[in-house]
Amino acid sequence: MTAEHHTPVPSEPVARPEALVSTARDEGVDAAAAAARRLIDALLRAGDHTDTDMADVAKQLDALADQLTERAPGPEDRLVTMWQGSGITRHDPVTGPENAIAPPLTLAGREDGSVQGTVTLGFPYQGPPRCVHGGVSALLLDHTLGVANHWAGLSGMTAELTLRYLRPTPLFEPLTVTGRQISVDGKKIQTIGSISAGGRECVTAQGLFIAKQLPRPS
Amino acid sequence: MTAEHHTPVPSEPVARPEALVSTARDEGVDAAAAAARRLIDALLRAGDHTDTDMADVAKQLDALADQLTERAPGPEDRLVTMWQGSGITRHDPVTGPENAIAPPLTLAGREDGSVQGTVTLGFPYQGPPRCVHGGVSALLLDHTLGVANHWAGLSGMTAELTLRYLRPTPLFEPLTVTGRQISVDGKKIQTIGSISAGGRECVTAQGLFIAKQLPRPS
Repeated sequence: MTAEHHTPVPSEPVARPEALVSTARDEGVDAAAAAARRLIDALLRAGDHTDTDMADVAKQLDALADQLTERAPGPEDRLVTMWQGSGITRHDPVTGPENAIAPPLTLAGREDGSVQGTVTLGFPYQGPPRCVHGGVSALLLDHTLGVANHWAGLSGMTAELTLRYLRPTPLFEPLTVTGRQISVDGKKIQTIGSISAGGRECVTAQGLFIAKQLPRPS
Repeated sequence: MTAEHHTPVPSEPVARPEALVSTARDEGVDAAAAAARRLIDALLRAGDHTDTDMADVAKQLDALADQLTERAPGPEDRLVTMWQGSGITRHDPVTGPENAIAPPLTLAGREDGSVQGTVTLGFPYQGPPRCVHGGVSALLLDHTLGVANHWAGLSGMTAELTLRYLRPTPLFEPLTVTGRQISVDGKKIQTIGSISAGGRECVTAQGLFIAKQLPRPS
């Protein structure tokens, strides 16, 4: 069975099913997470090289965290909403608009069966000087391969992932991230992907996934 | 040439050279980044399931980000300090105390030539329900293998990384992350590592690194 057998035929233009990735809203927790991303970047830009009173910054952030945590549902209740309906694509550390760790990457399903997105990464994702951390590339690709499986119609959990680093991946430039399911054999799914900059591949990924899912909290 | 030839002999107890990983300070930008981590977690716990005015939270965070950015050095100047002296281990997305994306993981060099650290991950690092995202495990391991190379005396850039996922890696439980350089052949470095929970391996990593470094901004 090949990926082609699973590939839905999207309408023009390229479809983006709600369950593939979530679109960030300009309100609610998405807006707060977007501002938190700006803050993470600003802290790195500042370091201890400004006259800002960092104790005061810490105090303000702690107060906000306390306020949010006090009003938040308990972790078990929250796990249920995270794994219900469209919640499933809202909290992950790659595409999740609610997760300030996520750049976030937005992926769209394509007619050829692949998924693709563009993202520009800054200081928080740095490995070598001016370059994306190799582990961040692995994070983006692992997730993208998982979304490619979802788009192809059969997804699962990563069993093995191999990354090849062909050249440094630049910060501050648009990166194209792609994934594509290439074969399904019983429960074994083979999926590939890459990160490119300026039309040149920087990192490739090859993944073996097993078609099973952990139970969702309920 | 094996790793043993590079391994420094640390004094008891386990040594932690300043350049291996940085110790988070309870002040300055480290304290602000620690508070930002609490905030990232709190936003995910809250989601859109509280009566908190998220527009107001976003406004406060944007104001802090604006204030920090205005007073921060220019990006080129900041890159220089990031890559000078002990700065090199302060900003990365795995161990960096200045980076709110980093858990942060603290790694210590050990007498047997390996590096090891313990970390507990929460909501921001979730992949499958209640489990660490496979890509986050890859991020932690890529970095840990790099630090293991540093500890062994010869480090470089990741050329190839293979991850094997043996069982789900739990959130909310202490994880042991280890890395160890196993061989050096010219510029080719082989390094392995793993993430364990409760004494059982969850993820293993095998990396090929090339002994070269990108120039540091100056």
